[in-house]
This record gives sequence, C-alpha cells and structure tokens, in this order.
Amino acid sequence: MEWINKRKILIVGLGLMGGSYAMALKRLGYYVSAIDMNTESVRYAIDKGIIDEGLSRPERDLISEADTIIFALYPRIICDWIRDNQSMFKPGIIITDVTGIKGNIVYDIQDILRDDVEFIAAHPMAGRELSGVENADDRIFRDANYIVVPTDRNTVEAIEWCRNLGQILGCRKVSILSPGEHDRMIAYVSQLTHCIAVSLMTCHDDPAIADYTGDSFRDLTRIARINENMWSELFFMNKDALLGEMDAFIQELTDIRDYIKNEDEDALKEKMRLSTERRNQFDKIL
Amino acid sequence: MEWINKRKILIVGLGLMGGSYAMALKRLGYYVSAIDMNTESVRYAIDKGIIDEGLSRPERDLISEADTIIFALYPRIICDWIRDNQSMFKPGIIITDVTGIKGNIVYDIQDILRDDVEFIAAHPMAGRELSGVENADDRIFRDANYIVVPTDRNTVEAIEWCRNLGQILGCRKVSILSPGEHDRMIAYVSQLTHCIAVSLMTCHDDPAIADYTGDSFRDLTRIARINENMWSELFFMNKDALLGEMDAFIQELTDIRDYIKNEDEDALKEKMRLSTERRNQFDKIL
Repeated sequence: MEWINKRKILIVGLGLMGGSYAMALKRLGYYVSAIDMNTESVRYAIDKGIIDEGLSRPERDLISEADTIIFALYPRIICDWIRDNQSMFKPGIIITDVTGIKGNIVYDIQDILRDDVEFIAAHPMAGRELSGVENADDRIFRDANYIVVPTDRNTVEAIEWCRNLGQILGCRKVSILSPGEHDRMIAYVSQLTHCIAVSLMTCHDDPAIADYTGDSFRDLTRIARINENMWSELFFMNKDALLGEMDAFIQELTDIRDYIKNEDEDALKEKMRLSTERRNQFDKIL
Repeated sequence: MEWINKRKILIVGLGLMGGSYAMALKRLGYYVSAIDMNTESVRYAIDKGIIDEGLSRPERDLISEADTIIFALYPRIICDWIRDNQSMFKPGIIITDVTGIKGNIVYDIQDILRDDVEFIAAHPMAGRELSGVENADDRIFRDANYIVVPTDRNTVEAIEWCRNLGQILGCRKVSILSPGEHDRMIAYVSQLTHCIAVSLMTCHDDPAIADYTGDSFRDLTRIARINENMWSELFFMNKDALLGEMDAFIQELTDIRDYIKNEDEDALKEKMRLSTERRNQFDKIL
C-alpha cells in the first residue's frame, strides 16, 4: 500500500481534529509535522509528543518535505491557504481535508489546485464538545464513520488512498458519497441536530431544570455545547441543504403539535409507531 | 421510620415501572404483591421472583392486607380504579403513584378518595425505551430524580413518607414540586424532548442514514422508540403546558433558521454562546 512509503505527513490546522489525526498517525509510525498560526498550540503539541515538528507560519522547508498534507482548518480559509502556499508542495502528492461541508469548498480547491497535485475530500464523522489541540484524542475515530467525498475529477488511486487513510485511523466504517449527497446527509444527521440542541437549551429559562431532568434532556442537549465560530461557518456554507432540513423538521413537529392540540390520537400514535420502527431499524444497522 | 413497620406493599399495574418498584422493594425485604389484568405479566413476575403474590383482578384479600398501594397504571384509569376498589383498602393507609403528569389526576383522586386514606403523588424520573415487566430493572432508579408532588390537602407525614420511599428506592435526588410546577417542568424536559425525537426520526426518509451518522443523531433519537399508548395519554393530559413549550421551541428554532437564512452571524453566535454557557452550567449542577 502506498501508505507504507509515505513517511512524512503535514497537518495544517492543529485544533481538536488536526491534533487527533496527528496522534493517530504518529502512533502508526509516521513522521508528523504541523502548521498552526497559534504558537501555543504548536508548542503544546511538540511538548506532548503529539507532533514531531511544527511551525506557526507556512515555511518552504516543512511544506516541501511533506508526502501528504491534511487540512484541518475552518472551511472558509482552506482554499486561500492552498492558493497561497501550493507552490511549495512536493510534486505529485495527494492532499485531503477533514471539513464538515463539501460542495462549497471541494470544487473551488480543485479549480485552483496545481495540475500535478490531487485533492480528495474526506469527512471523519467524529468529534467532541470541546475544541483545541489540548482536547485532541485519537480514540474519537474508533466508532466513527469516515466518508470519502470524490468528484469526477478524482482518480481511482486517490479515492483508494483516502479510503485507506480512514481505515488506518481506525474508523468503524468507510463510505463514499458525492459532495451533494454528503451535504444533504450532513444537513440532516449533524447540522439539524445541532440547531435542535441549541434551540432546546435556549428556548426556556429555568436554571433549576437540572434538578429534575431525566436522561432525555441530557441526551438531547449534549451537543448544545458548541464551538460557535466553526459551526456558524459550517451552517452558512451549507445553507440551502440545512434550511431544507430545518423546514421539514419544523413542519413535522408542527404536525405533531396539531395532533396533540386536536387530540388526534390515531395520527399521533401512527407517527410514534413509525418513529419506533425506524429507530429499531437504525439500531439493527448499527 | 414508618417504612420499617410497613411490611406489605401492593403494586397496581405491573409494567416496566411497577415491576421495577417491585424488584427494588422486594430486595429491601418488603412483602410485595401486585395486580395486573395481564395474567402473563403476573405469572412472569411470580416465576422470576419479582413479586411474592399476584392476581389479574382486584380481590379483597390481597387489597385489604396492603399497608400501602403504589399505582403504576396508565394515567387515564387510576382514578376509576381507586373509586371502584377503595372500599377494600385497609383503613388509614397512605397510597402513591408513579405517573408522569399530575395536575389532571391528583386533584380528582383526592376528591373521590375515602377520608381516612391519603394519596400523595410522586414521579420517579426514570424509565427505559422498553415496556413490560419483562424489562423491569431496579437499577433505573440509581441516577434518577424522584419528585414528590403534594397538594395543600397533603399532610407533612405523607410528604415525608413519600420522600423516604424515593430515598429507599435509591434515587439520586428527591425534590418537591406542586402539581402545576411539575407539569410545566415535565412538559419541557421530558414531553417536548420526546416530541422532538419522534419528529427528527420521521421528518426525513432515508434508510441509509445510519451508515453515516455520528453520535449526535444517535443521541437525539434514542427516545424516538416510544410507547405510543402511554405517551399519547401523557401528552393529552398535559396538553396546555406541552403546547406552550412546543410553541416556544418552534419559535426559537425558527429564529435560528432565520439567522442562518440571513447569515446573521452575530445573532447566531450569540445563541450558540448562550447554549454553551447553559449546558456548562447544567453539567456543573449534575
């Protein structure tokens, strides 16, 4: 496998995800370097042995030695970073990312990228309700789904390379989706759920609720602790798909509200049976 | 404590909750009997040693010997059961329940109850996404909040008796709320969350989502497996409070939808910061 010979991996953006990639890859024996404009993060990662080498600005020596580059930056700045620094990339390499939305960045990157370098997008569906390299943890990949998101410009080799990356990180399942499929799916299973959790946490003002709550409120608001800078970018950059899912959910909840208001027992129970059946199905698949 | 001398406990309604009470109380050394119209449930509970004695219909011998009665029936039928059978109750006893709504049943029961018997309402905020005595488990009380819900007709003695019951069941925290406070709180932390989980599970039709989902969707739909008979009763019997909470939540989510549509970054981030702060506060309390 190509991975055996690729010894030097550069991670650009050393937050929770970049740091977790670094830990996993260093454990596998790779030489891992990183660039992050936060000097503290770089110093911390070197001190803790999370990376072998790091800098707080792009420099030719570090970049040109990398056999692959993994972008773990916020979505808005990846394309500019590549445009500004791709002249230093080693010829012929494959590069990838970890970003939670795809349609709005993948095509732009492939448009401006050097002809001899290939960008294959990926999204590890893993994370924590914490940010920063201090909270990096390579165990987040264990139960995670890893999604490879090729366009028609990608080669079979790069797709396989990226699938293999997901596997060696230890992800539970590796799938392939188009950027459009990925963004619609993510709008539903991840972005909508975060919007719901935030709304549930903020729609009612009672500091004493924690004394009385059962598990359900706790479960539904776990992800209400949210990195507002990253998630607002992700929401805006996947706006159309997310608004569609939010509208569908609001309509569904409004229907259930009306069944309760009108005491329409048949309609309400029918929804609950469908919900139970789907959740059972879901548990079977998992 | 009064509990030491009260040896015989009758549980009316032998489902998940009734069975879990029986297990916990029998383990503590009480003689536990039960009445449930489902003969299979009674037979199962006797065979498994969950109860000492049981019947599928109300009979004087069993009822008149009970030093206390715990009602674990669906909410709509408790009051009728008491009216029909209270002539057999031992004089002077205290009785209680486990029902998830209060305002719509507590006053009715206290209105029709014999003068020498006292009903003190309680709600153990514990459960599972399964029903039936076969799924009873006394470990559900371990992390649970137990809420005593007195009216101004209740005596201090009965309130203390009921608080003690929550403690010996092993509940984490015992609180006291009025029926109105209880029902508003439960509408928010439990009923609204179940409506959200059902809506999230049914608003989008894609059987393949489970292949891609991260933890957030899994967490938000755990309670989407729902007993439609019990929950539709609970929703209808707490309709006003629940509709108020649903409307507040739908409005909040619609506001967030509009911030995303208009790319109002400041307003969106402000909500996310509030949400994060409240969830942090919530974790501190727990």
